[in-house]
Amino acid sequence: MTTGTEWLRDAIATLPERDEASHRSVSDRATDILRPSGALARLDAVAAWVAGWQRTAAPAVRRPAALIFAADHGVTAAGVSKYPADVTAAMLAAYRAGKSTITAFAAVAGASVEAIDVGVGRPTNDIRYEAAMSPERFEEAVAAGRGAVESLDADLLVLGEMGIGNTTAAAAVAAALGGGEVAAWVGRGTGVDDEGLLRKREAVREAVARIVFVLDPLEVLREVGGAELVAMAAAIVAARHRKLPVLIDGYVVTAAALPLASISAAALDHCLVGHCSAEPGHRRLLERLGKQPLLDLDMRLGEGSGAMAAVPLVAMACAGITEVPTFGEWFG
Amino acid sequence: MTTGTEWLRDAIATLPERDEASHRSVSDRATDILRPSGALARLDAVAAWVAGWQRTAAPAVRRPAALIFAADHGVTAAGVSKYPADVTAAMLAAYRAGKSTITAFAAVAGASVEAIDVGVGRPTNDIRYEAAMSPERFEEAVAAGRGAVESLDADLLVLGEMGIGNTTAAAAVAAALGGGEVAAWVGRGTGVDDEGLLRKREAVREAVARIVFVLDPLEVLREVGGAELVAMAAAIVAARHRKLPVLIDGYVVTAAALPLASISAAALDHCLVGHCSAEPGHRRLLERLGKQPLLDLDMRLGEGSGAMAAVPLVAMACAGITEVPTFGEWFG
Repeated sequence: MTTGTEWLRDAIATLPERDEASHRSVSDRATDILRPSGALARLDAVAAWVAGWQRTAAPAVRRPAALIFAADHGVTAAGVSKYPADVTAAMLAAYRAGKSTITAFAAVAGASVEAIDVGVGRPTNDIRYEAAMSPERFEEAVAAGRGAVESLDADLLVLGEMGIGNTTAAAAVAAALGGGEVAAWVGRGTGVDDEGLLRKREAVREAVARIVFVLDPLEVLREVGGAELVAMAAAIVAARHRKLPVLIDGYVVTAAALPLASISAAALDHCLVGHCSAEPGHRRLLERLGKQPLLDLDMRLGEGSGAMAAVPLVAMACAGITEVPTFGEWFG
Repeated sequence: MTTGTEWLRDAIATLPERDEASHRSVSDRATDILRPSGALARLDAVAAWVAGWQRTAAPAVRRPAALIFAADHGVTAAGVSKYPADVTAAMLAAYRAGKSTITAFAAVAGASVEAIDVGVGRPTNDIRYEAAMSPERFEEAVAAGRGAVESLDADLLVLGEMGIGNTTAAAAVAAALGGGEVAAWVGRGTGVDDEGLLRKREAVREAVARIVFVLDPLEVLREVGGAELVAMAAAIVAARHRKLPVLIDGYVVTAAALPLASISAAALDHCLVGHCSAEPGHRRLLERLGKQPLLDLDMRLGEGSGAMAAVPLVAMACAGITEVPTFGEWFG
């Protein structure tokens, strides 16, 4: 087995295409289903998307699975969050005890939830001053993301995260790769006050200025990201190789995915965005990526909650193709 | 028992208010749940809404039920629809056989579906020339809507409809009560072509002009509505008296609800709108009613499909309050 980083670069270079026959089969069937043609336009497209990536003409969401990656961040020393860093560990415990929003949502959606510790209580370095991770730490996070996906029995992957300070890391990745005014990428995260927002913008500016000559998107992720962002990027790539369509959650997950899109424009074609977060950078990032979210409900929780909220829609989209006859089948 | 129409007028005059204590209990708990305050803003408000109308501090969606009212329309003689009138009967059979989009969606949402015939194969009169219904026919439709709700065992009601020609009736009700340019209320329904759209606009203009002196909103509904619209209006009122929050579907259901709002501004407070339809009059109507839809996915199917698509969100909103500890409960 190649090491984490080598595997990741190889896996990005060899991303499978979607299965055109399955995609077309569902698109064609959609035009003849027992309802006015086009009446479910967007959901029919979602069903065809699932089919193309599951590589089957009978797309289904019966075993949705959420992976929640959690880690701590040295940049919290800059006073960028409303909450102290030990909240990360407390929330990890809550997910594992089934006492959290994501586990409550998952119960409604019939999904499993696994929370994966990739550095809780073991913060990355402060991105204002040095690389968040050593190459070894980066490897470790890649391996965790890859391994979690490879041991799943699922037909749809929901990605979520938890990590006090991680909207700062997300903003740094987005600003470094997305360009433009740094401040436009920085929001209030869990709800930092005005002074905290100024500190957060300054921290992101420092981090981005520090790596202005770093061009490799994966190196940007190692420099100013976080361990859970690296794990999620690896999970997205691993899912592609395992015929697993992915529902992306909010700003932090999308920022983790951004380096993949910077390397290969089609790298996120197997990903749909569950919702648009109230964190202002998210809408901006989705516009850059050309992704239209399924939901737009002003949520800003993370934990994969916005993506999980969209799981039943994806399941319905599939059922709307496979569980409904065509005009020919019904009248024939 | 009073007759349908008498009951309806009485029931509208005696609409129960929401239970403030339950509503407040959930709103208060939402601010202290184990997540950043306000992170689920919109869904927390949905949970409080359910609590207020279910009259319990522990809101839940465990037995969602859809009622789909189906009927035929004499105005189809004007060439206003893409489909022939006998499609109404075929779709009613499909719902009852569980071979339809709404039944496929309901299976995902864990909801029951009952399709109720209030005039399939027994079209109302052509609204261009005469009242759609006699007072007796109106009574019958009210009784059907009321009776269907009163025999339900449910905690959330999804309302849907089927009836070739019924977006024409909906547009006439909306134009008569909503005012403004008639054409702005008329869309393509299931997909009528350009010439059909002109015929449809003309039919609505004729119907609305015919009743220009009719001021009573329920009389407007009898004059230019349809039997399924009347049944749905009655169902909405009956649900209010049975502690049943209601998820409204698209343009036709919302138009059916409009006369209630015209009589009493608070009459639809126990109703949320599941989605915004691609039928342009729907967005217009929602703005008039001050209702923000949960979903906006360009759907235009009817059958209750857009409301059913939102059922898991409402269930998640409730679970996000009742199944997640507060900070005090978790750390205390």
